[in-house]
Amino acid sequence: MSHASTTPHNQHMVLAARPQGPLKVDDFALQDASMPNLEGNDVVIETHYLSLDPAMKGWIEARVDYVAPVEIGDVMRGQGGGIVIESSKPEYPVGLQVTGQFGWRRYVAGTRRSLGLAPVPEGIELCAALNVLGITGLTAYFGMLDIGKPARGDTVLISGAAGATGSVAGQLARIAGARVIGIAGGEEKCAWLMDTLEFEAAIDYKNEDVSARVAELCGEGIDVYFDNVGGDILDIALDNLAQNARVVLCGGISRYNETGPIPGPVNYFNLIYRNARMEGFIVLNYLKRFPEAITFLTQHLLDGRLKHRETITQGFEQLPVALASLFTGGNTGKALVAV
Amino acid sequence: MSHASTTPHNQHMVLAARPQGPLKVDDFALQDASMPNLEGNDVVIETHYLSLDPAMKGWIEARVDYVAPVEIGDVMRGQGGGIVIESSKPEYPVGLQVTGQFGWRRYVAGTRRSLGLAPVPEGIELCAALNVLGITGLTAYFGMLDIGKPARGDTVLISGAAGATGSVAGQLARIAGARVIGIAGGEEKCAWLMDTLEFEAAIDYKNEDVSARVAELCGEGIDVYFDNVGGDILDIALDNLAQNARVVLCGGISRYNETGPIPGPVNYFNLIYRNARMEGFIVLNYLKRFPEAITFLTQHLLDGRLKHRETITQGFEQLPVALASLFTGGNTGKALVAV
Repeated sequence: MSHASTTPHNQHMVLAARPQGPLKVDDFALQDASMPNLEGNDVVIETHYLSLDPAMKGWIEARVDYVAPVEIGDVMRGQGGGIVIESSKPEYPVGLQVTGQFGWRRYVAGTRRSLGLAPVPEGIELCAALNVLGITGLTAYFGMLDIGKPARGDTVLISGAAGATGSVAGQLARIAGARVIGIAGGEEKCAWLMDTLEFEAAIDYKNEDVSARVAELCGEGIDVYFDNVGGDILDIALDNLAQNARVVLCGGISRYNETGPIPGPVNYFNLIYRNARMEGFIVLNYLKRFPEAITFLTQHLLDGRLKHRETITQGFEQLPVALASLFTGGNTGKALVAV
Repeated sequence: MSHASTTPHNQHMVLAARPQGPLKVDDFALQDASMPNLEGNDVVIETHYLSLDPAMKGWIEARVDYVAPVEIGDVMRGQGGGIVIESSKPEYPVGLQVTGQFGWRRYVAGTRRSLGLAPVPEGIELCAALNVLGITGLTAYFGMLDIGKPARGDTVLISGAAGATGSVAGQLARIAGARVIGIAGGEEKCAWLMDTLEFEAAIDYKNEDVSARVAELCGEGIDVYFDNVGGDILDIALDNLAQNARVVLCGGISRYNETGPIPGPVNYFNLIYRNARMEGFIVLNYLKRFPEAITFLTQHLLDGRLKHRETITQGFEQLPVALASLFTGGNTGKALVAV
């Protein structure tokens, strides 16, 4: 889009080096690429947005085993949203908005299956589809509803609450009738949680004493803690659990820039005294239930009960900078790059 | 019993000091006491055995909040087994064997309710009732079957496997059709696990490399880890989980003699990659389901599928020493004091 050229020109962003500690721009390299074509494919797509997720750091560091690592020299893996510009399949006509596993490519061709193509539901913006119907929204859905199971009146605490997953997870708990308290960094994010997302309270971890505020706001104990950060905040939550509490382990952004050994949660033993559980999950294990989640999330987007926000960085070449920014709290809501 | 006297003489063991670090004999004091009588009570009982559990250390240190602490000067709380020597209730005739919350008393009087009296089922030895039908057996039942949920063919790993809870928990998993691997200290305990309890394998943590042995024996991953010890062994288990694994947090004997901060499990993050859960419980929360458990356990004791073993220390005055010995691995099976 911002790529001003009369004839389309393709580019890829490839992994140039395995990051050591914080991401560097040099860990990626821009490459010219030939334009893809329809031969053997269902569609050719022009990428409009690429989605950025903290989990990507694990893929390029090759330190997780639930998906194959991205190899050096490979095009970076990632979800994207765009428009069909050539098609051999009537169900994906030219002009259709779709999301899928595009990788970091300005133009991409593939089959329904190879790209995991999903048409954007009618009435939904492409950005919202990548946000709420994308991998982070699905993560929020299964993590909160399937593992956290908030009941009416429950106290639900969420860290990383202004992020893509946290903001959807919190709203799903609110819709289920829970009191939702979010932890986020900075006044602006906290104001968004309360004013727009209708959380009951927000804790600014950069400017408030999280331990004191959690104790004050969760005097009856935390029924569901949805953890996106790990570290000290996980320990504070474990120290304030209600009986039969559920701790949903979604991520640990505080871990991602660490290179040495990372301490475990010293208060885990409280799980015993509170008859509580701590449970992790990888959203890909819920693949068969994605349609159920997408139907639910689409309905709540359309009726306006689920709000969404995207932090959009302009320019394909800004992908590495935008990805690194996830780990310094640069985004509110979903981080996207507009190509 | 070992108290040689023609007229019965009562004694109590009271808490003399809150232990700091490892238990000391001086933390308790022996006191003469008057003989209890039937007035206002259902029964007078002569104590034959008193049960020792690691959880007792938490009560006297007053560092848990799920039960009231034992106060200094109070008779030590604890389960016992004995014989009814006076009775005002036909359902508890003189000569009946009963268990209940006797406290550390040679003779005790009370009501059905105040003592939580339970007649020993016909055909069951008093020691076995305190072991398998006592609080440790019930802990094994709910922890393994309700939280661990072993399925046929599952790999179940148990630490503290030769202890009172671990030995019952492991047999329940075996009865459910799982492959059971126990971790215990010393060749003798390991031999007992394999030869008598029919575990598939045993790991001697005092003489073997636990990490290497777990990896070797649990190559397909651990489906259920029943944790009685915490510390390094919990981390090794977390590092070897199968998909959808259940980690049952039953105790943490490695913690009990620590006074400083205790590290958390650094490998907890693996719960995410394995879609796994770690869940704690206090058996008292299952009070309403105790009859179901006792029926099940009694049946399996009677038909010989559940084996039991007690390490019995002779002498009421040895209670403090016997309790301390729990924390240095002195017992195989259930630790009891014969009064």
